[in-house]
Amino acid sequence: MRTSIATVCISGTLEQKMHACAKAGFDGIEIFEQDLTVSAMSPEEVRALADRLGLTLDLFQPFRDLEGVDEDSFVASLARAEAKFKFMNRLGIDTMLLCSNVGTASINDDELFMSQIRRLAELAARYGVKIAYEALAWGKYVNTYQHSWAIVQGVDHPNVGICLDSFHILSRGDDPAEIAQIPAEKIFFVQLADAPVLSMDILSWSRHYRVFPGEGGFALDQFMGYLVKSGYDGIVSLEIFNDVFRQSDVERTAVDGMRSLIWLQDQTIELLGAGATEFPLELSALPAAQTPSGFDYAEIRTEDPEAVAGMLAQLGFTFRGQHRRKPVTLWSAGDARIIINTQRSRGITAQVSGFGIQVADAQLGTSRATALKAPSVPRHHTIDEHPLHGFIAPDATEVFFGTWASEPAWAAEFGAGAAPADTGLVSGLDHINLAQPWQAFDESVLFYTSTLHLEARPGTEVPSPMGLVRSQVLRTDDGAVRLALNIVPHGLEDTRDGALRYPEHIAIHTDDIFTLARRAVAAGMEFLAVPRNYYEDLAARFGLDEETLSALQELNLLYDRDEHGEFLHFYTETVGTMFLEVVQRKGGYDGYGAPNAPVRLAAQFERNRWSKY
Amino acid sequence: MRTSIATVCISGTLEQKMHACAKAGFDGIEIFEQDLTVSAMSPEEVRALADRLGLTLDLFQPFRDLEGVDEDSFVASLARAEAKFKFMNRLGIDTMLLCSNVGTASINDDELFMSQIRRLAELAARYGVKIAYEALAWGKYVNTYQHSWAIVQGVDHPNVGICLDSFHILSRGDDPAEIAQIPAEKIFFVQLADAPVLSMDILSWSRHYRVFPGEGGFALDQFMGYLVKSGYDGIVSLEIFNDVFRQSDVERTAVDGMRSLIWLQDQTIELLGAGATEFPLELSALPAAQTPSGFDYAEIRTEDPEAVAGMLAQLGFTFRGQHRRKPVTLWSAGDARIIINTQRSRGITAQVSGFGIQVADAQLGTSRATALKAPSVPRHHTIDEHPLHGFIAPDATEVFFGTWASEPAWAAEFGAGAAPADTGLVSGLDHINLAQPWQAFDESVLFYTSTLHLEARPGTEVPSPMGLVRSQVLRTDDGAVRLALNIVPHGLEDTRDGALRYPEHIAIHTDDIFTLARRAVAAGMEFLAVPRNYYEDLAARFGLDEETLSALQELNLLYDRDEHGEFLHFYTETVGTMFLEVVQRKGGYDGYGAPNAPVRLAAQFERNRWSKY
Repeated sequence: MRTSIATVCISGTLEQKMHACAKAGFDGIEIFEQDLTVSAMSPEEVRALADRLGLTLDLFQPFRDLEGVDEDSFVASLARAEAKFKFMNRLGIDTMLLCSNVGTASINDDELFMSQIRRLAELAARYGVKIAYEALAWGKYVNTYQHSWAIVQGVDHPNVGICLDSFHILSRGDDPAEIAQIPAEKIFFVQLADAPVLSMDILSWSRHYRVFPGEGGFALDQFMGYLVKSGYDGIVSLEIFNDVFRQSDVERTAVDGMRSLIWLQDQTIELLGAGATEFPLELSALPAAQTPSGFDYAEIRTEDPEAVAGMLAQLGFTFRGQHRRKPVTLWSAGDARIIINTQRSRGITAQVSGFGIQVADAQLGTSRATALKAPSVPRHHTIDEHPLHGFIAPDATEVFFGTWASEPAWAAEFGAGAAPADTGLVSGLDHINLAQPWQAFDESVLFYTSTLHLEARPGTEVPSPMGLVRSQVLRTDDGAVRLALNIVPHGLEDTRDGALRYPEHIAIHTDDIFTLARRAVAAGMEFLAVPRNYYEDLAARFGLDEETLSALQELNLLYDRDEHGEFLHFYTETVGTMFLEVVQRKGGYDGYGAPNAPVRLAAQFERNRWSKY
Repeated sequence: MRTSIATVCISGTLEQKMHACAKAGFDGIEIFEQDLTVSAMSPEEVRALADRLGLTLDLFQPFRDLEGVDEDSFVASLARAEAKFKFMNRLGIDTMLLCSNVGTASINDDELFMSQIRRLAELAARYGVKIAYEALAWGKYVNTYQHSWAIVQGVDHPNVGICLDSFHILSRGDDPAEIAQIPAEKIFFVQLADAPVLSMDILSWSRHYRVFPGEGGFALDQFMGYLVKSGYDGIVSLEIFNDVFRQSDVERTAVDGMRSLIWLQDQTIELLGAGATEFPLELSALPAAQTPSGFDYAEIRTEDPEAVAGMLAQLGFTFRGQHRRKPVTLWSAGDARIIINTQRSRGITAQVSGFGIQVADAQLGTSRATALKAPSVPRHHTIDEHPLHGFIAPDATEVFFGTWASEPAWAAEFGAGAAPADTGLVSGLDHINLAQPWQAFDESVLFYTSTLHLEARPGTEVPSPMGLVRSQVLRTDDGAVRLALNIVPHGLEDTRDGALRYPEHIAIHTDDIFTLARRAVAAGMEFLAVPRNYYEDLAARFGLDEETLSALQELNLLYDRDEHGEFLHFYTETVGTMFLEVVQRKGGYDGYGAPNAPVRLAAQFERNRWSKY
């Protein structure tokens, strides 16, 4: 099968869209008619540009409201269709999408549908055009693929086949299994879209909330599996109507789409197992996924390294040394390694700028991320330095792969510091929380899940004085690597440089938070102050005894509990847009203290005056 | 009835919210518990601040998951409730909202619900607390107000009454008529919310999309009418969960909320007619609404007045003179008056900065806008100048009221120009199209409909290379005044000054667009170029003859047709963010050529390089 994408998925002019799709590696495109109608390019120019860019023009779409109407209306539609066939001939497109009638159908009669579509096909044949008939989920009379397939069979014309769209099938909860029974030569086109699980009218869901495969909740690997079984070998095209994608950078969105197909091919192969067509989408094989075994390090970029170093020291981190060549220092405590980087830090008080993860084979991880079109971090290594390869995530975080080791190989490049101290208080990095600009969220979810082999957990929403914050956890099953993505409310972009005025953090893990907190206080650390009202509410909710409550309150510790265990944590003050969190998990508690996030955000808002107005 | 608002409606800290609500004129507030939990203010401080600001603290909310559970769970909930009652005593709040159980209820037994709520009431009575029981629309067993009222009757305790929430009643399509039969003294609280007509699960609709009265599709005047009939004289409070309001300026949103109640009181009085309680919300009477009879003028602010003047001259406008005192010139053609203003224009190439409307009594219009809390435009008049009063709309447009006249009184202040020419080609202003920043849209709809007495028509969505543009028409029934609001896609704010890089326009009306267009071309005007593909599509859609089609194409005219008539129009080039449109309406065509808007936006995007990236 070959890859394609509908021009309606992305922003910009038709010319910009074509360039972006070619650059992202698609074999072809579907022309969404309106994109051509509003374009200054003639059909001949579009055809020539596609030719130069190596793109095939796969589908002209949509043609609407044809079947199930009276003869006068039908004849008018035929005239409209003929004009489009002529136009398609100039473009050199041989397939037109016909959607099942939504608006004008008034006669519910399969025989009439068949005869009208057959007459369209006879006209189309004269222009060498094929008709791909698609059941829209909200079609007036025809709204399932079984029904459209029955009609295509009844039409029984070589120029009429079916168009299968995963959204229209899966949004209704229909079983896609029967796809495997459709003769491959009668499947004229396939469109793919994923979507988040939402409960709303299907039309609005479809028009605004579709996402690329891997960014939503549909089992598209299974859908692809049935398609493989049918023997289909034609075009698989992304058709994603998404309000955010249509407002976002065209090149990035096109790459996001291609990444979703690379990922989907991989998932499909995994599902089908041995003996399957190896590369159903004719894309290169994706190097094997490796579940990361933990964080290698977290990195803070800052023009004020002393402020950050002071906080780390107060939490019991040891200065391990300065990099032999770069203005970068390493601090560690237990398995938690934090790097302070002052390169390219002008104007950045402090921010969470990147992290490393450990996998069994770093080179393999790098190859997989490269195959998934992750952009590389430009980084130089001298011959005697450990090579590290990194990628820039959609939220601008720099992510590096390291090979598993209790003391990473690159650490040897940091000299003149102390040996790792063994206080036993900090055990490692627990999670990293990253701010997401509004246009990066879905892209980030696919990026992190596909390149780092993390799983997306159900999202939550956190109220804050700046607005509701959507939060999404991505993690390994065992919790060794946990990322929390927060979509930043609108209006918190800095108007000078576009940076987000929203706090990100690195959470470290301890098995004795009371001792650690007391030592930090003794070392002069100031925690984020937790309001007294919080503790009163805590008492009412959990019935904690006075002693526990006053110990928590004295140290500004926060508390949560669920059926599996308990969670204790505290936050440092914010430096720039970065702060640290210390957490202790007891029993099987596996969350992040979400009920306490509003307390944190409100305190940070008041403390840092992040007001937008 | 007295006015109140839930703190959850607006952004900021509790302290900021309280100041904003007091400033906007609310009698009191509902404390959303989490706003207090995350606040550094103690209950005593909140009470004292409310006292200083003259706000009553009307409700503590929400208390959840009480009834329909086993005895152990219930006893734990009672303990939780008692802690809250103590807290409420410190705050000085005497009413708590109890929501019908959504999460933990497992026993569906009205008798059990009654006995458990009665036990809660007995405990509450000891603290002087009253319980307002509300049926959530998605309550597990109790989800209609008729059911919650039956339970309140069954509980039969002086400390238990009903809370009525318009959203929970109207979102289900329930008939609110029975409200009139509930004894007023058993209605303990009333919450108001409007909502746009959406088809999605009620919980998401409620949590994200509620709007202030007058900004959605619910018949709240009718709801209020039943409340008046019940004899209720307590608190009416806004409880609006809206993602945008929670991200917007707290003071503006609070004023928006108060405006909605002033408007709603007026609507309710109108509905109830003579003999009704005159001011159900105890708000001042709103001066009578007047339907505007037309536009008085449109205003363009520019630092390049010659470029704008040139365009007006090419369209047949006459220079009528310079203002006696200000750097402002007047141009007219037929009843279309356009003012070019160079005051405060530094850095503004050209923008649509304001407009005037004509009403029977300008002073009355001004009084009504003032009563609706519209902020005034600071403007000075000398003693011998015609006083004009203007207001700043949420989108920063300056709107002025003028008294109806074929030649307005203020025009006499412009001297030294030509007499009005009578070419007969331009008849007047047809409509004005205004760009809306993302956070101003709902506020703008209420502002323009309430202050200018316009009606909101169903919205549309227009695709553009920058993203989908939501468009909303506000107009008089006769079309004498028409505004089109466009929500600007994210990312088009200028990072230097926050201004929107999105085109706005003034449309003028003619009865002979071909002659006008030819004269303009002869005068050297360049129109926005319309792509050839557009005309091919036009031919296919409407079957226009070759002659008409080539005449349209030659002049870059656009065309639309519906069952009522035809529409012809063209666009000028854009200067700054402003352009002009010329329209001709034939027959009963009453739209705006919406199918052509994508053509315009794409051409403007390419021409002006409004790329975001």
